[in-house]
Amino acid sequence: MVDQPLWEQIGSSFVQHYYAVFDSERENLGAIYIDSSCLTWEGQQYQGKTAIVDKLKSLPFSKIAHNITAQDHQPTPDCCILSMVVGQLRADDDPIMGFHQSFLLKNINDAWVCTNDMFRLAIHNFG
Amino acid sequence: MVDQPLWEQIGSSFVQHYYAVFDSERENLGAIYIDSSCLTWEGQQYQGKTAIVDKLKSLPFSKIAHNITAQDHQPTPDCCILSMVVGQLRADDDPIMGFHQSFLLKNINDAWVCTNDMFRLAIHNFG
Repeated sequence: MVDQPLWEQIGSSFVQHYYAVFDSERENLGAIYIDSSCLTWEGQQYQGKTAIVDKLKSLPFSKIAHNITAQDHQPTPDCCILSMVVGQLRADDDPIMGFHQSFLLKNINDAWVCTNDMFRLAIHNFG
Repeated sequence: MVDQPLWEQIGSSFVQHYYAVFDSERENLGAIYIDSSCLTWEGQQYQGKTAIVDKLKSLPFSKIAHNITAQDHQPTPDCCILSMVVGQLRADDDPIMGFHQSFLLKNINDAWVCTNDMFRLAIHNFG
């Protein structure tokens, strides 16, 4: 049995924690961000713990469930961890939609925090 | 008119260049990677310019066209640029498929290189 590299263990633990909190009490996600963290949510940019949590709290659904299809993790040259998630979600009783999200995790004062977060629904324009 | 932030200009120039080269002469993509660069392609990991280019060259199609649906860019705390792309591609005469790709760009010796690259087709298991 091959042990998972450390960055994969950290990345997949983060991803599991993130979606568990998002689906049950997303107002508590502030703990994973710092004041310089950036969130880009469907193209809109937010910076800092407060602005990010305000955005997440304001999302117009009361219940949501994420299902992860694939997740990848890599170490970066600056000792961070880059994670990319592909999945599906269901918000309230809307149809199931695809999504993708990327996170950059950094170790600050012995804790892993999310410094960069990007989210997009998988919507394509067949223009 | 609001100027784009520098990281957006750099990120979007990189993305435009990457897919233009990928679609016309992907064996030349080695120039954007360094020896510590990581590629995760559909869950398979490759490290270094040579291994990455060998993988890209071995992909089993002779022509490909990417179409970008959305791209997001963020500055990171270590002065890198994180980019996430959502799009569609057509390989040879296969059906059009969704994909997503994340890049981490770092400035080394006055040039922007790609240190981290993750690619996934948008395939979900409705298990």
